Amino acid sequence: MKMKFATRVACLLVVGHVLSSAGRTNADEGMWLFNDLPRDYLKRTYDFEATPQWAEHLMRASVRFNSGGSASFVSSRGLVLTNHHVGADTISKLSTSERNYYRDGFYAATLDEELAAPDLELNQLVSIEDVTDRVNQAVRADMPASEALAARRAAMAQIEAASLAETGLRSDVVTLYGGAKYHLYRYKKYTDVRLVWAPESDIAFFGGDADNFEYPRYCLDVCLFRVYEDGKPAQIADFLSIAPGPLVDEELVFVSGNPGRTRRIHTSAALKFQRDERMPHVLNLLRRREILFQQYGLEGDEKQRQAQDDLFGIQNSRKAYLGMLQGLQDPAVMAQKEAAEQTLLAKVAADASGGADAWKKIAEVQERRKPMLKQSGGFYSGLYSIAETLVLMAKEDQKPSADRLREYRDSNRESLLQQLFSPAPLYPDLEEAKLADSLSMFVEQRGGDDPLVQQVLAGKSPAARAAELMAGTKLAEIPQRKRLAEGGLAAIEQSEDPLVRLALLMENEQRRLREQEEELAEIERQAYARIADVLFAVQGTSTYPDATFTLRLAFGPVRGYEERGRQIAAWTTLGGAFERDEAAGSKSPWRLPDSWRENRDRLDLATQFNFVCTADIIGGNSGSPVVNRAGELVGVIFDGNIQSLSADFVYSETQSRAVSVHVAAMREALKKVYHAQRLVDELGQ
Amino acid sequence: MKMKFATRVACLLVVGHVLSSAGRTNADEGMWLFNDLPRDYLKRTYDFEATPQWAEHLMRASVRFNSGGSASFVSSRGLVLTNHHVGADTISKLSTSERNYYRDGFYAATLDEELAAPDLELNQLVSIEDVTDRVNQAVRADMPASEALAARRAAMAQIEAASLAETGLRSDVVTLYGGAKYHLYRYKKYTDVRLVWAPESDIAFFGGDADNFEYPRYCLDVCLFRVYEDGKPAQIADFLSIAPGPLVDEELVFVSGNPGRTRRIHTSAALKFQRDERMPHVLNLLRRREILFQQYGLEGDEKQRQAQDDLFGIQNSRKAYLGMLQGLQDPAVMAQKEAAEQTLLAKVAADASGGADAWKKIAEVQERRKPMLKQSGGFYSGLYSIAETLVLMAKEDQKPSADRLREYRDSNRESLLQQLFSPAPLYPDLEEAKLADSLSMFVEQRGGDDPLVQQVLAGKSPAARAAELMAGTKLAEIPQRKRLAEGGLAAIEQSEDPLVRLALLMENEQRRLREQEEELAEIERQAYARIADVLFAVQGTSTYPDATFTLRLAFGPVRGYEERGRQIAAWTTLGGAFERDEAAGSKSPWRLPDSWRENRDRLDLATQFNFVCTADIIGGNSGSPVVNRAGELVGVIFDGNIQSLSADFVYSETQSRAVSVHVAAMREALKKVYHAQRLVDELGQ
Repeated sequence: MKMKFATRVACLLVVGHVLSSAGRTNADEGMWLFNDLPRDYLKRTYDFEATPQWAEHLMRASVRFNSGGSASFVSSRGLVLTNHHVGADTISKLSTSERNYYRDGFYAATLDEELAAPDLELNQLVSIEDVTDRVNQAVRADMPASEALAARRAAMAQIEAASLAETGLRSDVVTLYGGAKYHLYRYKKYTDVRLVWAPESDIAFFGGDADNFEYPRYCLDVCLFRVYEDGKPAQIADFLSIAPGPLVDEELVFVSGNPGRTRRIHTSAALKFQRDERMPHVLNLLRRREILFQQYGLEGDEKQRQAQDDLFGIQNSRKAYLGMLQGLQDPAVMAQKEAAEQTLLAKVAADASGGADAWKKIAEVQERRKPMLKQSGGFYSGLYSIAETLVLMAKEDQKPSADRLREYRDSNRESLLQQLFSPAPLYPDLEEAKLADSLSMFVEQRGGDDPLVQQVLAGKSPAARAAELMAGTKLAEIPQRKRLAEGGLAAIEQSEDPLVRLALLMENEQRRLREQEEELAEIERQAYARIADVLFAVQGTSTYPDATFTLRLAFGPVRGYEERGRQIAAWTTLGGAFERDEAAGSKSPWRLPDSWRENRDRLDLATQFNFVCTADIIGGNSGSPVVNRAGELVGVIFDGNIQSLSADFVYSETQSRAVSVHVAAMREALKKVYHAQRLVDELGQ
Repeated sequence: MKMKFATRVACLLVVGHVLSSAGRTNADEGMWLFNDLPRDYLKRTYDFEATPQWAEHLMRASVRFNSGGSASFVSSRGLVLTNHHVGADTISKLSTSERNYYRDGFYAATLDEELAAPDLELNQLVSIEDVTDRVNQAVRADMPASEALAARRAAMAQIEAASLAETGLRSDVVTLYGGAKYHLYRYKKYTDVRLVWAPESDIAFFGGDADNFEYPRYCLDVCLFRVYEDGKPAQIADFLSIAPGPLVDEELVFVSGNPGRTRRIHTSAALKFQRDERMPHVLNLLRRREILFQQYGLEGDEKQRQAQDDLFGIQNSRKAYLGMLQGLQDPAVMAQKEAAEQTLLAKVAADASGGADAWKKIAEVQERRKPMLKQSGGFYSGLYSIAETLVLMAKEDQKPSADRLREYRDSNRESLLQQLFSPAPLYPDLEEAKLADSLSMFVEQRGGDDPLVQQVLAGKSPAARAAELMAGTKLAEIPQRKRLAEGGLAAIEQSEDPLVRLALLMENEQRRLREQEEELAEIERQAYARIADVLFAVQGTSTYPDATFTLRLAFGPVRGYEERGRQIAAWTTLGGAFERDEAAGSKSPWRLPDSWRENRDRLDLATQFNFVCTADIIGGNSGSPVVNRAGELVGVIFDGNIQSLSADFVYSETQSRAVSVHVAAMREALKKVYHAQRLVDELGQ
C-alpha cells in the first residue's frame, strides 16, 4: 500500500473509537496523541515507561511530508528518511524524459549533487497546546450552524495568527474528538528539501500493484532527502539512531507518524453512506482515472513515465477502497457496529440531555450528502487548479485574513505560493487528457442540458474544448502566474487566459458547493462532539481521537499471523527477494534490478528485509519511523496488509498488520548495492 | 475495434435514420435489407446493377456467428472466414494452460486435425418473408402495453413454430422499423463447426488496445473455421471466390454482414438518456470489469490466459462507448438532432393524427428507465447463468411454448441446450472473482440493508459468499446440468446446489425487472412505429431500418480521409507492418510474431494489408465479407475508425471509415508464413 494521505479527499472530521460498547476490546488499538499517551497501559501491559524525554525526542525526530506522508530525521545534518512512494511525487517531478530517476534510482555522491525538490514542505512538530476553551468561547449554543462555523473559524484563525506572529512557527489549530477538543500544533517548517538517494522503482515497489497490500513482501520502499537552512544542511538536535541488532518475535515497537483519517466514531448511518454511496462513487472515479492513465501510457514510454506517479497513486487508492468496502459490505461487521450503537443509545436514552439527537442529525446529514456526490466545482488538471487558486486568492484577499477561506489566510500564504509557483513539470498532453476526461465527467454529472455545462463547453465536445483551453492558456509559465498573482483582482478580472476565465465561470458554483459541504461538516462536528461526550461518560476519557493527519503514536509487538490456514512469519530476508525473483522467472513486477543481481554475492542474505507488527496505522503513516524501546530506529512503515484496510472504521489485531522495511536492509543495500558509503557513515550520527 | 455484438446488452428496438430533416444527406449511408436494396440509387450513383442473382448469391454466402459477428463461406467444402476476434471466444475455449492457441495460433494440417468448437452456432440466411400483417392482426389498438406485448409475442411464436415445423429451418420473426414491419428470417443452422486456422494474437491484434479503432493498421484479424454435416465437410453451393487483383482508390465495394444495433431513429430524449444516464453507467461497469480482469491476470500467466478474451472484449467495448459518448456530448451534434426533430414535429403538428404523442411517450419511457439502471436481476458468472437457465427453463416449461419467455420456446430449445451443455471451460478462480465482484455490485446498487441483498449474502461479505457458492456448486459438471435439466421442475426445487438455490431466490426479482423492461420496450416499439410512419410520410419509404443483428448490405468506395490536417491513405501494405514494428523498437503491442520475422524475405511486401472504405457499419459487422462489383471477395471487415463510432446514432462519410483485412494479405501469409498450402489451394474453390 502506498499510505500517502489523499489530501484532496473531502474532510469528514471524526472522533475516537465507538465500536466496543464498553472500553477497548483490542489491546493495541490506538493512534495516541503525543500529549496524552497511554502511559499506564504501556507500563501495565509491556512494562514500558514512556518517559516525557523519550516521547519528546521521538516527536521531534518525526517529520511530516505535507504532500502526504510521514518521515524521520536520521542524522544531525538533516538527513530525512521516508518511503520511496512518499518521495515518488518529487522524484517524478525531478525526472525528465532523459533522466528517469523514478525508474532508475538516484544517488548524490556529494552534497553538491543533492537535487532541490520543486515544492516540498516538511514539518517538524515542536509543541502541542490545548486551546479548547479559547475556541469554544467564540461559539454560543444557540447559533445556527453557519454562524457557529464562521465564529469558530474566526477564533481559530486568530489563535493561529497570534501564534505565528509570536513564534514564527507554522501554527495549526487541530479539531480533535470531532470538536470536543481543539489543540494548537506548532511546526518548524522546512522548504529547502533536496533528494539524496532513491533506489530503482523495481525494488522500491517489488511486486507492484499485484503485491500491494499483500504480505510477505520484499520492498526497499525507502528514500533519503535532506533539509537545508540558509543553503546549508540543517542542524538537527533530535534524530533517530539506527538500532544495532535484528528484531525478535514479540518485540515491542512504536510507530510515530501522521495517520490521515479514520472513521471509528462514525455512526452506522454515516458508515452506510460510505458503504452504499460514497465508496462506490469514489471507486468508479478511481477506476476511471486508472484507465485514463493506462491509456495515456499506451502512447509510448515517455508518456508512461509522465503518468506513472499518478497511476500508481490511483491503483493504490483503488485497492485500499476496495478493501474498505469489502469490510463495510460484510453484514457481520455492520451488525456488530449497530449492536454497539444500540447499547450506547440505550444509555443515552436513560439520560435527560437528549444526546440521541446527535445520531439523528448525522443520519440527516448523510441524506443531504447523497445528491452532492454527483456535483463538482472544479476540474482534474494541475493547470486548472492553478487558475482556480489565482482566482480565489484574488477574491479572498479582498477580505480580512480571518474571514477568508482557510487556505487563503496570511498564515498559510507562504505554503500556498510555494505550490502556486512550483517549477514542477506539468505535461501538456497529460493535462489535456485529464481535463478532457474531467469535462466529460462534468457533463455526465450534471447532464448535457445543464446551463453551466453548456457555458463550460462553449459549443464543443469535451475533448475539443480541452484542446482549445490547453492551446490558449499561458499558466504553464511561472512568470505568468506571478504576474496574475501580483496583479490582484484587477489582473484576474482582465485576464483573457481561458483557464482563468473558466475558473471565474465556475467560482459561484464552487463556492456554493464548498459552503454546503462546510455547513454539513459543522453539523456533523457538533453532533460528533456530543457523541464524544457520551463516549467519555461511558468509557472514560482515556481514549484517542480519530486520525487527523497529525502526529500520533501507535505500538504493538512484531508478530506474524495466520491466513487461510497458513502461518505467515513476522519477517522476510534479503535472500527471500532473490527467491521470489527466481520463482517468477525474473518477470516484472518481480524482477530485481540489475544492481541487485550484480551484487547478490556481496549481500548478507540473512538480513531482515520487511517485517510486520500489530501497530494501529492507516494511510498517512507511510514513511513513519518504527522504533524500539530504546527509541532506536528499526524500520519504516510502508504498507498495511489487506486485512488492515478496515482500520478506517474498525481495528483488529488478529490479522491486521503494519508492514515495514527493516532499516538493516536499507543499510546493507546502501553499502553493497548502491555503494553509498557517505550515507552509511552519516546515518545515525 | 472488435465489432462483436454484445448480445447481453438490453435490446432497444429502433428504426431508420431521423437525422436529416428531408431525405438522406449522406450518400452512402445505409444498412440495407436484402429484400429491399437501393437498386435505383446504386444504378444512378455507381452505375451498378444489383441483380437478384448477385444479391441472393451474396446473401447465401454470408454467415452469422450467433456468438456475435459475421462471416462468409469461402470454399465449396464449408470453409468459413471471419475475424480472429470473432473466433477468439472459441479459440480461447479450445486453449488450455499447455496449448495457448489464442496467443500462439493454430493450424490443422489435415482435416482430421480440425478442432470441434464446443458451442458455436452458425447461421446461413436462406429466405426473408414479410409477415407484418399476420403479426399486426393479433394486436388491437386499444390493448394496454402488456396485453399488446403478449398478443404480439404469441403471434410471432406461432409464425416461428409453424415455419420451423414446415421447413426445419431456424425461423426468427424480426421487428423492423421499430415495429412498423415484421419479417420472417429463415436460417440454415450449422452446429458442428471446427477451427481450421488462426494466426498468433500478436498479428491478429497488432497494436492492441492502443491501436484499436485507429488507422492506419496492420492486423491479420482473420481466422478460418469449417462447417460439417454428418461428420463431413458441408457441401456449400454459394461461396465467395477471391478477387484476383489489388484494390484501387474509389473502387466501389459492398459489405454483407449483421450490424448489431443502431439508434438513428432515437428521439433527442432517448439520446439524452443515453448521454446522461445509460452510457456513463455502462462505462463505469466496463471500467470496473476491465480492472477486475487486469487484477486477475496479475496472478500469473495462466490466469492472464484465462481472462484474456473477456478482457479484450471489455476494452473494446469501453473504447467504443467512450467514442459514442464523446459524440453525444458534443453540443453541436445534439443541436443538429434537435433541429431536425423540431422540423419533423412541426410537420406532425400540422397533421391531425396526434403523432407528436409518440415523442412524448418516448421521453416518458426514458424517465422510467433511469432508476432501472441501478437494478440487476442476476450475477456476472458463467456458472450462475447456467443455474439461472436451468431454473427458468424448468419453470417456463410448465407453460405452452408460445406463452414462454422467448428463449425458452421449443423452436429455440436446440440452441439453448447447446449453450447449456457446452463443454467450454469455466475457470473456478475466474468464476469466483467475477461472482464476488458482481455480488459486491449488487450490494452497491440496492444498498446493504436491502432484504434481498441480505438474503443473497447470507450473513457473509461478497468475497466470502462467492467463495462459499463456488465451493458448493456442482454445475461445472455437465452430467449434473443434464440431470437437473431432465429432472424438470421437481429436480430444480429439490436441488441443494447453492447456485440453483440462489437463482431460485433471485427469480421473482429477475422476472419483475424483465417484465418492466419489456413493457417499456413495447411502449417504445409502438411509439417508434408511429415515428417511422411519420418518416415514411415525409421522406418516402425507400429507407432502411435500424440495425437488428440481421443481414444487411452496406456499400461505398475505397477512400482515404483527412485527420488533423494529415491525409490518410486508403490502404496499408505488408511492408508497412514491418516498418511499424521497427518504429516501435519491436515492443509489444507492435511486436510482429517470430513467424513473420523469419519469413519476411519471402513475403511480397507490396501486398495490400488493411484498407478503408466509406461503408456504413457498426458492431456486429465484424467478419463481414467485403466484395467487389463482381461479387468477389476482397476483404474482411474488422474495425471502424474512431470517427465511425458515432454511427450508432449518426452516419457521416467525411471521416467515418470501415477497416478491412485485404484477402490478398491473408492468402500471402497463409502461403509464406503459415505454410498452409492446403488452405491456399482450397480458398475460393
